[in-house]
Amino acid sequence: MSRDFSEYKGLAFEELSVGMSAAMARTVTDADILMFAGVSGDTNPVHLDGEFGAASMFGSRIAHGMLSAGYISAVLGTKLPGPGAIYLSQTLKFKAPVKIGDTVRAEATIAALDTEKRRVTVSTVCTVAGKPVIEGEAVLLIPAKK
Amino acid sequence: MSRDFSEYKGLAFEELSVGMSAAMARTVTDADILMFAGVSGDTNPVHLDGEFGAASMFGSRIAHGMLSAGYISAVLGTKLPGPGAIYLSQTLKFKAPVKIGDTVRAEATIAALDTEKRRVTVSTVCTVAGKPVIEGEAVLLIPAKK
Amino acid sequence: MSRDFSEYKGLAFEELSVGMSAAMARTVTDADILMFAGVSGDTNPVHLDGEFGAASMFGSRIAHGMLSAGYISAVLGTKLPGPGAIYLSQTLKFKAPVKIGDTVRAEATIAALDTEKRRVTVSTVCTVAGKPVIEGEAVLLIPAKK
Amino acid sequence: MSRDFSEYKGLAFEELSVGMSAAMARTVTDADILMFAGVSGDTNPVHLDGEFGAASMFGSRIAHGMLSAGYISAVLGTKLPGPGAIYLSQTLKFKAPVKIGDTVRAEATIAALDTEKRRVTVSTVCTVAGKPVIEGEAVLLIPAKK
Repeated sequence: MSRDFSEYKGLAFEELSVGMSAAMARTVTDADILMFAGVSGDTNPVHLDGEFGAASMFGSRIAHGMLSAGYISAVLGTKLPGPGAIYLSQTLKFKAPVKIGDTVRAEATIAALDTEKRRVTVSTVCTVAGKPVIEGEAVLLIPAKK
Repeated sequence: MSRDFSEYKGLAFEELSVGMSAAMARTVTDADILMFAGVSGDTNPVHLDGEFGAASMFGSRIAHGMLSAGYISAVLGTKLPGPGAIYLSQTLKFKAPVKIGDTVRAEATIAALDTEKRRVTVSTVCTVAGKPVIEGEAVLLIPAKK
Repeated sequence: MSRDFSEYKGLAFEELSVGMSAAMARTVTDADILMFAGVSGDTNPVHLDGEFGAASMFGSRIAHGMLSAGYISAVLGTKLPGPGAIYLSQTLKFKAPVKIGDTVRAEATIAALDTEKRRVTVSTVCTVAGKPVIEGEAVLLIPAKK
Repeated sequence: MSRDFSEYKGLAFEELSVGMSAAMARTVTDADILMFAGVSGDTNPVHLDGEFGAASMFGSRIAHGMLSAGYISAVLGTKLPGPGAIYLSQTLKFKAPVKIGDTVRAEATIAALDTEKRRVTVSTVCTVAGKPVIEGEAVLLIPAKK
């Protein structure tokens, strides 16, 4: 029995239009920071050493910026455009720190479509309580369905 | 007993020079992909469903691009410039997929220094067997030591 | 700024019909079994001790049945009906073992709707290469949207 | 050196009697929910997005029901009947939510024995502070020892 993968609702290039958006949100806990430190190897004490964090300009430990960037990847990879899209590039401007207990909402909005190259430019923003913590832009390629 | 955090060897702006570099490497396993999927929420089947991966243009499951980006964050946050630097921005161009068993080497090289703003521009590249999988650039701010 | 949670596409009771289905699949690795053992506390050696597994009737270590049950929960909680539904019950018949490297596909199909109680009965099956490994039925309640 | 696996105290069918019981308990933390979301792929925001949880009928994030079901699997697989038993089926009625900080106690009590088929029916209940959160029944097969 062969699978057709129709269960994965990745959007075709033809289904995309400028202004479409998708989002998800996660509350950042100690466990998220520990797990991200473990999987990335980023053991910067500003993430893991509460005394260092308290003495820093942030006043407490903060989450890894790339953890929030991972939420952008989640929106792109699971919702818009979803499975099948090829991630070509991402820019990230870290605007403000994320602290333990913050709920980070990652939103992706289609900004431009290049029909010839089948490329989609997506505006990506992460917010905490409505305030941007990361701003940037992704470009993805949507291959033609076989 | 108060701590002076001298155990953390973050470099001062004055210690940096163009061309300095640092690197680390990680071998990507099933466990890395599973943990990254969990912590990011990116459950795109190209990372987790071997049958979908086999049918994809990559021919197998691949790692999340943001996992390798996490290794860049690790080099910047722990080695060059290290603890105390503020991550302002990162660009990422995903050049090739990373597969299970690949060893990803993340290297950061200082490309430019802005003394007035205390900002450092870092060229960042991830390679597998010498071949680039991610290219990009980071900008960090190095606050003056108190 | 208050959120309206419109980013979560949980289906309303009125959007459901008998026969609708959704699915996802995961390839089971050593890491999945280890992580499930850790989080559940189910350290049965048939999952973790390769010598015990080899001597068992299965001929190798096998995955936890409740790991595959977790994939059913994932389909129900993220796709059909999705966020907002209340999980009332689940039956599970374990039909065959899942081994390391197997790709488990969890599929949920709406079997019945009780409009008065706003309850949906969902037929749930997990398959490996088309062969059932778990069969059962879920019942969920879909509260009216406020 | 060959092993006889006598270190694993799985009970023989002949050692079982109606009314025997065993239990274990786990305190559910942020980390348990994060790990379960990762290993199952169940990223329903009611488990991971604190703002969504707060706005839900539960008033906060809740644990995955299947996480508590995993504790039942742990009791059956490690204590009663323990290693060597074959898990045939499980029913689960989700009676109340489990929240972060709750200690879930999973208890299994033998309800019936079918000597001819070597099957044991086990009443399974998870409680928080004595109040049931899951009720159900498991059936297992105890092969004759070789």
